[in-house]
Amino acid sequence: MNLFYQPKLSEGLLLLSEDESLHAIKVLRHQTGDSIKVTDGQGTLYLCAITSTSGKVCKLEVSSQEKFNKPNHFIHIALSPTKSSDRVEWFVEKATELGIQKISFLNTQHSERNKINIERMTKTAVSAMKQSGQVWLPEIEGMVSMKEILATKRDQRFIAYAGERESPLLLHQAKKDKSYLVLIGPEGDFSAEEIQSATQSGFQPISLGANILRTETAGVATCHILNLIQH
Amino acid sequence: MNLFYQPKLSEGLLLLSEDESLHAIKVLRHQTGDSIKVTDGQGTLYLCAITSTSGKVCKLEVSSQEKFNKPNHFIHIALSPTKSSDRVEWFVEKATELGIQKISFLNTQHSERNKINIERMTKTAVSAMKQSGQVWLPEIEGMVSMKEILATKRDQRFIAYAGERESPLLLHQAKKDKSYLVLIGPEGDFSAEEIQSATQSGFQPISLGANILRTETAGVATCHILNLIQH
Repeated sequence: MNLFYQPKLSEGLLLLSEDESLHAIKVLRHQTGDSIKVTDGQGTLYLCAITSTSGKVCKLEVSSQEKFNKPNHFIHIALSPTKSSDRVEWFVEKATELGIQKISFLNTQHSERNKINIERMTKTAVSAMKQSGQVWLPEIEGMVSMKEILATKRDQRFIAYAGERESPLLLHQAKKDKSYLVLIGPEGDFSAEEIQSATQSGFQPISLGANILRTETAGVATCHILNLIQH
Repeated sequence: MNLFYQPKLSEGLLLLSEDESLHAIKVLRHQTGDSIKVTDGQGTLYLCAITSTSGKVCKLEVSSQEKFNKPNHFIHIALSPTKSSDRVEWFVEKATELGIQKISFLNTQHSERNKINIERMTKTAVSAMKQSGQVWLPEIEGMVSMKEILATKRDQRFIAYAGERESPLLLHQAKKDKSYLVLIGPEGDFSAEEIQSATQSGFQPISLGANILRTETAGVATCHILNLIQH
């Protein structure tokens, strides 16, 4: 059964957005009386009946609901966006699929992009959440400064940068059931000054493995490692 | 320093292809006398001097060479290609970046695509190899039948399929320094018959984690896990 998204369902908004309604009615050919699954992206899964499809809007009635527990860990990745917005979008999609709680887009000295289309990135995350049958939508924020991100508190804070080949592996440093913040630099890497500020603020330099990874691949690899260690 | 690719350098072909020459001369503005790095994709890294750039071709002279050892492990992923060739290409790019020895494209009962542009996929792999500074180009083959792939010998052979939620994790089953073959099904999953044939042939069902992953994400996650356990 396909999964739909309505963030305000728990506030009593018993209908799908225009886009979601269109998908339900035109693409999936849903009709009045059909049962569909809807999530609010906040951990609740609703089983709903479609009560009307007139005016291009799917109206809903909740048949049952299930509340899922928040995971014990919290993965927060702050990534300096790549020049190509496709690669940024791809990172958002894959990180959401693998499971991530928060994505920040980071403004750095060597950033090739200092604007981000948050609406588009959120759409990508919604689509990936639905596709992978999840009930939690990651929070997406941008752009944030190094100063702001260095002041963010988490149980474990790491910085991954290309110049650092001798750092310990994230796989071995990250502990289970913690909150994490990992900084991923731009293609041109963090500046020496940024690396110094981060380490002075208590961020631990880590390596993701033997190979040099592109920014977006480093982001996905980080997210994957932090999910793997929860098992 | 940028890395170039010439598979026949070790056979004495002391020039770059037209594409690579164009990139070297027009984009990177290399001139006669410049030093560049070239790999044959077979483990050798050459330091070369450009001896001529006339006729749109970079002619080379080898200054020194370094032969790298083959890794102790061998990662072979056979993946049923997705409908979108972008997603297949993305898998090839990311798997190459992370490190993979062989990619096969698998024909399955529910495959949405039974043709693959091997030339294009190889170009993607070459580009990812160069980008990530590697000297090994993965072998890419397609399309292969289930029969052929099930007859392929490796130390550890696994099958990942969406229906299987109770299987042990690949992360815990795969052992270091082995040769691996992992089958990744299409969006519509392997058929019951295919799963049965695979398990009867000794393929072990494994899970990649808690979430349902798209085919191409499952491929990249598999490749990442098999690289991580080598540390």
